[in-house]
Amino acid sequence: MALDEIIRHGFEFITLIEIIGTFAFAVSGAIAAIKSRYDLFGVLVLAFVTAIGGGTIRDLLIGNLPVSWLTNSIAIWSAIGGFILTVIFHKWFKEIQSWILFFDAAGLGLFTVMGIQVGLNADMGIGISITLGTITGCFGGVIRDVLSGSRPLIFHKELYATASVFGGLLYVALLTQIQEFWAQIFAILTVIGIRIAAYHFHLRLPKFSSGLSKDSLDY
Amino acid sequence: MALDEIIRHGFEFITLIEIIGTFAFAVSGAIAAIKSRYDLFGVLVLAFVTAIGGGTIRDLLIGNLPVSWLTNSIAIWSAIGGFILTVIFHKWFKEIQSWILFFDAAGLGLFTVMGIQVGLNADMGIGISITLGTITGCFGGVIRDVLSGSRPLIFHKELYATASVFGGLLYVALLTQIQEFWAQIFAILTVIGIRIAAYHFHLRLPKFSSGLSKDSLDY
Amino acid sequence: MALDEIIRHGFEFITLIEIIGTFAFAVSGAIAAIKSRYDLFGVLVLAFVTAIGGGTIRDLLIGNLPVSWLTNSIAIWSAIGGFILTVIFHKWFKEIQSWILFFDAAGLGLFTVMGIQVGLNADMGIGISITLGTITGCFGGVIRDVLSGSRPLIFHKELYATASVFGGLLYVALLTQIQEFWAQIFAILTVIGIRIAAYHFHLRLPKFSSGLSKDSLDY
Repeated sequence: MALDEIIRHGFEFITLIEIIGTFAFAVSGAIAAIKSRYDLFGVLVLAFVTAIGGGTIRDLLIGNLPVSWLTNSIAIWSAIGGFILTVIFHKWFKEIQSWILFFDAAGLGLFTVMGIQVGLNADMGIGISITLGTITGCFGGVIRDVLSGSRPLIFHKELYATASVFGGLLYVALLTQIQEFWAQIFAILTVIGIRIAAYHFHLRLPKFSSGLSKDSLDY
Repeated sequence: MALDEIIRHGFEFITLIEIIGTFAFAVSGAIAAIKSRYDLFGVLVLAFVTAIGGGTIRDLLIGNLPVSWLTNSIAIWSAIGGFILTVIFHKWFKEIQSWILFFDAAGLGLFTVMGIQVGLNADMGIGISITLGTITGCFGGVIRDVLSGSRPLIFHKELYATASVFGGLLYVALLTQIQEFWAQIFAILTVIGIRIAAYHFHLRLPKFSSGLSKDSLDY
Repeated sequence: MALDEIIRHGFEFITLIEIIGTFAFAVSGAIAAIKSRYDLFGVLVLAFVTAIGGGTIRDLLIGNLPVSWLTNSIAIWSAIGGFILTVIFHKWFKEIQSWILFFDAAGLGLFTVMGIQVGLNADMGIGISITLGTITGCFGGVIRDVLSGSRPLIFHKELYATASVFGGLLYVALLTQIQEFWAQIFAILTVIGIRIAAYHFHLRLPKFSSGLSKDSLDY
């Protein structure tokens, strides 16, 4: 009875984070489209591909077809919700910047965990599963940036994928020790913590100075 | 017998539009490549991905593999035809600009209808099927623009995807009322009408002014 | 016994080329990322997608899922090796430029042959199989360029895809005449030869001058 309660609440809690995360990813896509001076349709598409792009690439790679969002109305409506609210409230988004950052980090954490779980369920190894988790969390944003004509942010800005990788490593380590539900919670909190710290303290991975000009070594 | 005749002619008519539409999409890809100063191979690839890109993404999402163009020699030869004719006649394309616009709109209409039909046949819901129709019609052009180094036109120029969406809505509404063949004809004509009107009268979806600078809110 | 020996050595030889080719492709991705001023994670991702991108697109198109690199630890470790060595030694890469060119050309040849073989094994026609070979060899580089914010090199620089296509045509022609192993060797050498000659003598496919401005004919 009590266990049943926990499982039920666990499920509801995870669903809640999925809604919030998908929503936040859609908002980040919609904002990128508005910044690129795209029209209403462009804003809708970028909201959508940012929210479902990572999971779509994961599903394609492992052959989980039709891809999951086609039959997941929670994801679809969360993305549409993020689109509509961005269109209405985008002028005030600077004021709620830290909320968006927080929700986006929560989405990154949840998508990472969900992607790893999909990998493990498909009998992939641990390294591949963590890779699939990072793809799920990060590659919606890569598609967003390519479609809005920018170089992908995750390749040259504050830590983002790194937060996903660390959360993923923690998750698979904890899975052997504690209940899945609590492993998820700790992993998601870790991703949120690293990501927000990275944003505020401008933590970045090292870059490389090189004597390579843009034209040398072109193959 | 008479019905049989209609079905046969219906089939031939749709095949004719498929040839023309694929051809027109290939031409638009080849022209984009020439404008980007790409070489012969680049022109070939862009002709091809523009012609078959939308259907490929649709097939991937729903798991219709191998993707349909791999076994569809009509599509392949139509795309190659568009490539060859563009290479030969590109200097005169300004003179036949309105013909290309018309064929491209016809292709958009047909691909939309074909994509919706594939979705319905795969037991997808109506909303998802219309989405798949729009993806089939529009995302070849998105790949074309990404590969030629531009921001996708359908996100910031005259109505294009909107024509596809409206035609798609009309199609599924008509399907319950009249024969499939006539529903296809009316939907395709609607797409052509909206698209050409949009081009000539510069109809666009609203855009958003925002206080968001390129650097703020980067996640 | 002797035949068995040849097969074994053949296999080892091909595996060796796969390692070298994947490694060289990863190096080219990592270098592109460093030139784009990406961070450590960006360098890793570009090394990876360049090395496995072409084969991934091929596997997706024909429905060979999960895509092969997910279960191919040779490919994964070769790509990681290319990443690590580039990070350590990128300052000296100008000195070994011709080695990288050679390895990259060897990878192009091998990936072409492997892609054709996958196509033939999946009962695709000869034309489609050669197309799949070229996709396997070339489209990792296309993804690399899109993700690093450049227009794909293979569309406007020295012959690259052309070398792959010619090697592929030779391969399928030889397959009917001689043993598969020797057909592979001759095809790979042909690709290497064409590619290196193209690089040194600046051989390019023709481009098109046109009166088409960037703004005309936008659909």
